Amino acid sequence: MREKYVIVVAGGQGLRMGTDIPKQFLLLNGKPLLMYTLEAFHLYDSRIRIVLVLPQEQQAYWQSLCVEYLFTIPHRTINGGETRFHSVKNGLQEIKSESLVAIHDGVRPLVDRSLIAEAYETAQKAGAVYPAIPVVDTLRKINAYGGSQLVDRSQFRLVQTPQVFLSEVILSAYQVSYSEKFTDDISVVEAQKNCIPQLIEGRRENIKITTPLDLAIAEKIMTLRGTG
Amino acid sequence: MREKYVIVVAGGQGLRMGTDIPKQFLLLNGKPLLMYTLEAFHLYDSRIRIVLVLPQEQQAYWQSLCVEYLFTIPHRTINGGETRFHSVKNGLQEIKSESLVAIHDGVRPLVDRSLIAEAYETAQKAGAVYPAIPVVDTLRKINAYGGSQLVDRSQFRLVQTPQVFLSEVILSAYQVSYSEKFTDDISVVEAQKNCIPQLIEGRRENIKITTPLDLAIAEKIMTLRGTG
Repeated sequence: MREKYVIVVAGGQGLRMGTDIPKQFLLLNGKPLLMYTLEAFHLYDSRIRIVLVLPQEQQAYWQSLCVEYLFTIPHRTINGGETRFHSVKNGLQEIKSESLVAIHDGVRPLVDRSLIAEAYETAQKAGAVYPAIPVVDTLRKINAYGGSQLVDRSQFRLVQTPQVFLSEVILSAYQVSYSEKFTDDISVVEAQKNCIPQLIEGRRENIKITTPLDLAIAEKIMTLRGTG
Repeated sequence: MREKYVIVVAGGQGLRMGTDIPKQFLLLNGKPLLMYTLEAFHLYDSRIRIVLVLPQEQQAYWQSLCVEYLFTIPHRTINGGETRFHSVKNGLQEIKSESLVAIHDGVRPLVDRSLIAEAYETAQKAGAVYPAIPVVDTLRKINAYGGSQLVDRSQFRLVQTPQVFLSEVILSAYQVSYSEKFTDDISVVEAQKNCIPQLIEGRRENIKITTPLDLAIAEKIMTLRGTG
């Protein structure tokens, strides 16, 4: 397999959590949650090159946390940009050609090894891969009249990360100009239309932590896994 | 306000939970979760008429649980039908005219009083009401070519219960023939096109318990609320 990178994007300012601490630094069972995220990739393959994209003003704090928590997993810290798109673009400057590049949300610390493995392996062949899970609730689409209509939820998927790419696919995709429509990296790749991203089954436990309830749920998942 | 009913639909066979116990009877902090569901409505208004729709073969077990857990909230137990649609239809036979009728999933025990209140109050004017919450993840729609395309998640909502109706609206809606498309009661009402159901803001904590993870999350939510 090609050399592997992961770009971990952590740009949160923590506003939604109702706290001054950016959410990537919140304590999950007593440890900043961003550390679990980096560990997940390192535990999958210790040779993986980890690029952490973090707002410049948070980097000194992150360094002090690494000292305090004896966090020694090798990683390179890069300045974040104005939006997620710009942050990823900064991270991509660290990537060598002919590699595999995962892009992962810093606030998804519960990503498991089997999902990481499957995503890299599938990307090697497909060029671009994203995990997604089914919608379990009844889904409706808002209409122009203030009402909504039922849609067939089996036709929809909720998208997660890591999204993994051949380096040439993601590097060429990010030559595009920024658009507000880019909510993830698959949407950037698709804007170029030179690759059909492949969907793999995500994990329901691979949650994005954006509220205090999410943090509590994450701790419960860790307890169930016997890692909490 | 009109006289109030709630039809609590509990038809689960428990298969998805990987257990032989139907999920409505699973213990949430040591008590069958269906009891919390009935309690939520009783605590909102003790005069509310509770109709519990339960598969006939589970009713003796439910009675024994009520004795064991000293559960004394008044309710009437009615036989479930072949599908959710048929179960609700059975429940509707218990409803007096000129009332307000809530229909609620038995496995949503964390529904809170403010949501119940808002749903009944809004239904009094609107005729039909459903709570729904925004989609927080990137949402994609599967296409015919095995791929998928990005959709604007802000245009979609995840639907919850209780869904509340003027009795004449729901009774006349349920005269329709059964269709597989009816995944909830709003979809039944809409098939008749004589009322535009109104959306109200749901609660993220009002989860439907269908997996062991959901059960663990529910316990965590109760702890956060100080009721666990």
